[in-house]
Amino acid sequence: MRIAVLGVGLIGGSVGLAARRHVDGAEVVGHGRDPHRLERARELGAVDSVAGSVEEALDGAAACFACGPVGVLAEQVEGALAAAPRDCVVTDVGSTKRRLVEAVADPRFIGGHPIAGAETSGVEHARADLFSGAVWYLTPAESSSGLLYERLHRLVAAFGARPVAVDPETHDRRVAVFSHLPHVLANVLVTQAAERLTEHGDALSNVGPSLRDASRVAGANTVMWSDVYRSNSEAIVDEVRRFAASLEEVAAMLEADSGIAKWNDAARADRRRLLEPDPGGAPVHELRLTVPNRPGIVARVALALSRAGVNIVDMALAPAADMRSGAMTLWIAGDEQAARAQSLIAELGFPVAEL
Amino acid sequence: MRIAVLGVGLIGGSVGLAARRHVDGAEVVGHGRDPHRLERARELGAVDSVAGSVEEALDGAAACFACGPVGVLAEQVEGALAAAPRDCVVTDVGSTKRRLVEAVADPRFIGGHPIAGAETSGVEHARADLFSGAVWYLTPAESSSGLLYERLHRLVAAFGARPVAVDPETHDRRVAVFSHLPHVLANVLVTQAAERLTEHGDALSNVGPSLRDASRVAGANTVMWSDVYRSNSEAIVDEVRRFAASLEEVAAMLEADSGIAKWNDAARADRRRLLEPDPGGAPVHELRLTVPNRPGIVARVALALSRAGVNIVDMALAPAADMRSGAMTLWIAGDEQAARAQSLIAELGFPVAEL
Repeated sequence: MRIAVLGVGLIGGSVGLAARRHVDGAEVVGHGRDPHRLERARELGAVDSVAGSVEEALDGAAACFACGPVGVLAEQVEGALAAAPRDCVVTDVGSTKRRLVEAVADPRFIGGHPIAGAETSGVEHARADLFSGAVWYLTPAESSSGLLYERLHRLVAAFGARPVAVDPETHDRRVAVFSHLPHVLANVLVTQAAERLTEHGDALSNVGPSLRDASRVAGANTVMWSDVYRSNSEAIVDEVRRFAASLEEVAAMLEADSGIAKWNDAARADRRRLLEPDPGGAPVHELRLTVPNRPGIVARVALALSRAGVNIVDMALAPAADMRSGAMTLWIAGDEQAARAQSLIAELGFPVAEL
Repeated sequence: MRIAVLGVGLIGGSVGLAARRHVDGAEVVGHGRDPHRLERARELGAVDSVAGSVEEALDGAAACFACGPVGVLAEQVEGALAAAPRDCVVTDVGSTKRRLVEAVADPRFIGGHPIAGAETSGVEHARADLFSGAVWYLTPAESSSGLLYERLHRLVAAFGARPVAVDPETHDRRVAVFSHLPHVLANVLVTQAAERLTEHGDALSNVGPSLRDASRVAGANTVMWSDVYRSNSEAIVDEVRRFAASLEEVAAMLEADSGIAKWNDAARADRRRLLEPDPGGAPVHELRLTVPNRPGIVARVALALSRAGVNIVDMALAPAADMRSGAMTLWIAGDEQAARAQSLIAELGFPVAEL
């Protein structure tokens, strides 16, 4: 099966590596605007060969993955469809879907979005197992070919991903609240915190762990994120305004000193729901431990749990100001795993308590 | 020097341990409402002896640390001052200061707030080095005794902390934006995300790293945080409303599709400023690496850097959906340290790039 990959960065390169490893008889052809990057992709084994044009890449292809930046995807997909054979499925990996799916009306096109790899870029970081266990959203339309949808579904599953069909509006609304909104909040938060610093004429030698965690994604890659914000602006604007309205409710609640505890308890329950691996799945336990003032302790805990097969759903470190010590919170799914984690940590000699 | 500690939880216990280890001739007397906890504190060496009343604890004391929960601090401090000798300095460790300082007008009282340990509680987690390197805010008033301020300053410094004098308003404004606001945002975010889940009738099997990081402190201990919100509600309400107003500006900007890149770049610069260890200090470098699908890799990287004396200012993991692999971002202060980190990581065989 000949597979065309347009744009060989992190995602395109990983698609190529995954196809070559997991799909019998796959032959991956790469194309992109930068000849050096294409050549590098070939050296790294992400593509079998390099095509000089979109037409050459699509010649005889059974599937095509458009992996360019969000801002050029519509153009890239249109170009691929113009060159693709009749029975070739064309998909993309962009992080927003509605506008693209609206713009492209072709039974061979099915939008896609793997939830993986957003934190790095470049073919050097590509991996055959990047999609292992990851959700890969697919947005089939009424006009989509059933045969081609089945082919795409199987390909994505062969890469180790879990294909999930979703309509483009739901998809975009979901990423707006789970990904784009947190980025907006982080940006606004660091700016507000930096302003307060300036006003008080002081250095912030002690950003607390809460600000640290809350602001991690602030100022993410501007080129990429400008496109993302643009491509999903309606949903993001709506989520941002809902958030602002909720903040006004919180302000009123704090002023009235009424309902604070209930509100906080509800948030606690909501966070746990978000962390549950699946509905009705294993309950998530929250363990807190204090670790001493020595390097390598976090490593020891992580290794001990990992060796015992305990899956850490989430982890948060709250280092002391000297950055050499502090408290660790672990979220563990499942009663048995949590109990095992507690006894392992106790064996290591650290105080641990379930919250 | 006789030192009274009222309330022997994490902070009170650590004050006791630190005083007994670092202050020559210190004799620590503990008092609190729970006799079992007091006895446990004595067993753990956090106090030399246990007092049956505030009067007994303060008898002959040169210093008193009121370490109760925020909601009872005013009462606790008043009780201590009523029982304290004339030349005894009385301080507290509450996370907000304005209301307490306004309520207590006594030359012997100086408000305090160590930036440490907020993530755990209980005397079992107390450590003599909890305050090592931490900022310890002190709020001396015009009426405060200079002699007693000097004594408190020296005590706090002996614990390994960095005493920083600040007026109560500035202090409360600062914690409002660095600590309380992030908690409010996390609460609102998880609630909004959980709502969106429910609307779409689906489980969230793939909360992305951005939502994960942004929501870590959601639903923190309700009893403690209800008091915190109440004790600093004016400053928090103001920061929350400023934040909501900024969100409206962002929404308008996204709708107009104007200034997005500039806004994002500014946030990036602001986050770096917040991470700088001190004004004019070493520039923070951001390194991104991809780590393979094996346990213990994070540990190896952390240990390798730690052994080479490289200080990790901040670290973020972006695990793939299977939780076994992913990308790692490291923030390293200083050109030389960052370069050393890059070569160490490369030696370990992981692709690494500076962002």
